[in-house]
Amino acid sequence: MAREPPRFPVPHVRLRRGVVGAEEAVRGYDYETRYFRQRLDHFSFLEEEGEEGDGFFQQRYLVGRGGGWAGAGGPIFFYCGNEGDIAWFAANSGLVWEAATRFAALVVFAEANLSSHLAPHRYYGESMPFGSKDKAYNNPKSLAYLTAEQALADYAVLLTDLKKNLSSEGSPVVLFGGSYGGMLAAWMRLKYPHIAVGALASSAPILQFEDVVPSTIFYDLVSNDFKRESLSCFQTIKDSWKALDAQGNGQDGLLKLSKTFHLCKTIKNTGELSDWLSSAYSYLAMVDYPMPADFMMPLPGNPIKELCTKIDNQPDGTSILERIYAGVNVYYNYTGTVDCFDLNDDPHGMDGWDWQACTEMVMPMSYSEDSMFPADKFNYTSYEKDCINSFGVEPRPQWITTEFGGHNISLVLERFGSNIIFFNGLLDPWSGGGVLKNISESVVAIIAPLGAHHIDLRPASKDDPDWLVRLRESELGIISGWLSDYYGARRGALLQRAAPIPWTLLHHS
Amino acid sequence: MAREPPRFPVPHVRLRRGVVGAEEAVRGYDYETRYFRQRLDHFSFLEEEGEEGDGFFQQRYLVGRGGGWAGAGGPIFFYCGNEGDIAWFAANSGLVWEAATRFAALVVFAEANLSSHLAPHRYYGESMPFGSKDKAYNNPKSLAYLTAEQALADYAVLLTDLKKNLSSEGSPVVLFGGSYGGMLAAWMRLKYPHIAVGALASSAPILQFEDVVPSTIFYDLVSNDFKRESLSCFQTIKDSWKALDAQGNGQDGLLKLSKTFHLCKTIKNTGELSDWLSSAYSYLAMVDYPMPADFMMPLPGNPIKELCTKIDNQPDGTSILERIYAGVNVYYNYTGTVDCFDLNDDPHGMDGWDWQACTEMVMPMSYSEDSMFPADKFNYTSYEKDCINSFGVEPRPQWITTEFGGHNISLVLERFGSNIIFFNGLLDPWSGGGVLKNISESVVAIIAPLGAHHIDLRPASKDDPDWLVRLRESELGIISGWLSDYYGARRGALLQRAAPIPWTLLHHS
Repeated sequence: MAREPPRFPVPHVRLRRGVVGAEEAVRGYDYETRYFRQRLDHFSFLEEEGEEGDGFFQQRYLVGRGGGWAGAGGPIFFYCGNEGDIAWFAANSGLVWEAATRFAALVVFAEANLSSHLAPHRYYGESMPFGSKDKAYNNPKSLAYLTAEQALADYAVLLTDLKKNLSSEGSPVVLFGGSYGGMLAAWMRLKYPHIAVGALASSAPILQFEDVVPSTIFYDLVSNDFKRESLSCFQTIKDSWKALDAQGNGQDGLLKLSKTFHLCKTIKNTGELSDWLSSAYSYLAMVDYPMPADFMMPLPGNPIKELCTKIDNQPDGTSILERIYAGVNVYYNYTGTVDCFDLNDDPHGMDGWDWQACTEMVMPMSYSEDSMFPADKFNYTSYEKDCINSFGVEPRPQWITTEFGGHNISLVLERFGSNIIFFNGLLDPWSGGGVLKNISESVVAIIAPLGAHHIDLRPASKDDPDWLVRLRESELGIISGWLSDYYGARRGALLQRAAPIPWTLLHHS
Repeated sequence: MAREPPRFPVPHVRLRRGVVGAEEAVRGYDYETRYFRQRLDHFSFLEEEGEEGDGFFQQRYLVGRGGGWAGAGGPIFFYCGNEGDIAWFAANSGLVWEAATRFAALVVFAEANLSSHLAPHRYYGESMPFGSKDKAYNNPKSLAYLTAEQALADYAVLLTDLKKNLSSEGSPVVLFGGSYGGMLAAWMRLKYPHIAVGALASSAPILQFEDVVPSTIFYDLVSNDFKRESLSCFQTIKDSWKALDAQGNGQDGLLKLSKTFHLCKTIKNTGELSDWLSSAYSYLAMVDYPMPADFMMPLPGNPIKELCTKIDNQPDGTSILERIYAGVNVYYNYTGTVDCFDLNDDPHGMDGWDWQACTEMVMPMSYSEDSMFPADKFNYTSYEKDCINSFGVEPRPQWITTEFGGHNISLVLERFGSNIIFFNGLLDPWSGGGVLKNISESVVAIIAPLGAHHIDLRPASKDDPDWLVRLRESELGIISGWLSDYYGARRGALLQRAAPIPWTLLHHS
């Protein structure tokens, strides 16, 4: 069986129990929740009657005027929703709110297609076609429209309508997005330059497709994060897989392993446990923030350092597996309240991202010899088989690069496109698929060598290191430039329009 | 009943009888016909099994190496097929073949979605999903995928595959297109900059949507073409509608009218006749070329001048309607072989463009008081009703500007996008919806005050006026610049790649 591909961190969704409501989490920000009647399929004209449902769904979006919107013509800051409940992303994207106050911008967070029991991308959160999650996720036919292209068209239609309703057609829209939302923000700017003047695409691995970057890059970067903290920690983890298999294959091995790791139920194979461990390492690399954070899990600052300290500082004679157990507690049980671990408490199950990964979002992932994981090559055949088994759908692994590009991106965008910031924190393993070099004067890369997954978007805190404060200022400075350029050019255009060239004159010239 | 909206001129398709085969018409150019298994719906993942057909269709395309292709890495000149048989457009787009010889480019003409009994845009010509035209045009469900977005995705997929098969991924692609094909070429460059380095969009009225240009512009420009040749001709036509109604409403009026106009059958209402006349005027304005041409009909050079001479130079006492009859003979019967006119010989019927006009391609058309046509305002309600009656589909009149833009195009593209030539001949009424001013250094407008519909694309002929020869040279000069820029930048990129920055170094900076 193929190893589970890594996923983007989705705030809090993994905490199934005792989690505060999404709405509560954003209480610091003043917004109202609205719904927009959105077309399920923008790109064909199927007869709407007689089809399942009426061809529309209610897209959830949040509108905030926290800082006092400048009013008609004033900027609109639009967050492109991810694979999850929009309220969680709103709560975790303080930069957007804080920047909106400074620029007197209207804030809009929109849910991505089918997000509605979780978030503003269609099929996520409360933006659920076919009435309910069960129905929408029921079969490939209902999931068929959960694609990035449809999500971008949703945003284009929503923004056009919103501006019209506000009598604010002249408003410049700035796009924001982190992770998958960052990919959408970058692609939106490229595909819909008439809708938005620029995009801050934070930790957006738009190059993690096909053969654009090496398929080993992700787990190499995860591994580097551990190696960087402690070579012995890296080595212990690297050695642990063999130890785990050895113990698992021995007498009562699975039972012993389950005890060592304080699991609630005895595992059925070692793969379950190694997936659980790998997943912790990958997520820790993504959220290896310098300050305490409660993004996916409550975690201390520099959690990998913390984990490595636990692994390294056990008394002499502590076994490899006991060290590993002590380490992963930092991720799975930092608050110390867990009695035993239920590996299925975190079921990826069949959800929106799995569908997307099985259709468009095919990101090949291999494990190199130099990583701390058992070496393994990406096996497309088994990937495809899993997708057919799970969803009855064949992935299109070349589609994203055909639709959005990726190969030779500098060559393509050097003379095309403008006003995109690609932020990447180099501790984040997703930075391996990110744009890390300036492409042109206004398609730029901002790099934080000590930053993790979209750290720039997180709410400002007193614990923020100086580099983070400066980095956010750079981003806002660039955005400020986009806005002045836009208003300057618009003023120029309006003046020109006051003295139009008569048609007849043109015609007889 | 709403007046029939104008259509783009489609070469020869209107000549149902005695027309030479499309293949024969392109015999001057050396090419082979190929087929590509194309996905019917690029933007969703509907289960393919169990659906009507298998979710694919055979897209026809023509490949020519006439001038001797430079081979792997050499340029590819790609014509974005229109609403008709690709072979006709290939025959009528001599510029592409001639330019290909000069640049040692591979020539590809691709049929637009459902064109296959007629052309390389899907649903046209031989590129017909569902096996046959009858089936594809059978109901809205089968026509559902006949959209510009799907056609662009077809081209992207086809080109990606083609380059791969030629081991020529590094080839720069230059897009060409005239009329609707020109719109597709411009949009393709904007949406797929990674697929093509530039586009020559000839007579592409990408602004003829919503309220971007005045809805009266088209018929004002038609009228100007007549006024420019002869004020009395213009006035005779302007007066003829009342005369036509007067005669039609009199005793045996429709019979008399049918006799005056040598119609094979007696008309049922005057509208039939006035549509037939309007249609001739509009098409004449589109193809008002300075040299004889056989694009839609065999016509003399400056056909409007010819028509006006006929109208003006009748003996004193000739009635308005007899003058009009003498005039339109220039369009409908220049060869003098027609005994009587069958208004239904030219049935627009239900075809691909009607479908497109009833879904995305809603171009509002009004007739101003100053035009030579009876004044009339665009009535969206009746337009919509006609579409529901014909196809059971509701148009989306705001969709094209949402998906592709249009409003404030200079402001949007001034700092975004590059390498597009918008050619327009100002005699062409479609120029009213064209881009007529330079937007940036490399998104430029080329205007021919005396040119008609995509005259630049037509094969060179000894009768070409100097301005046309010079104009084509300007276009090829610009395209040559795109190619050198591309090869220069690529060489630079390859040199850079020879000395990559090691990941670990970046990582610890």
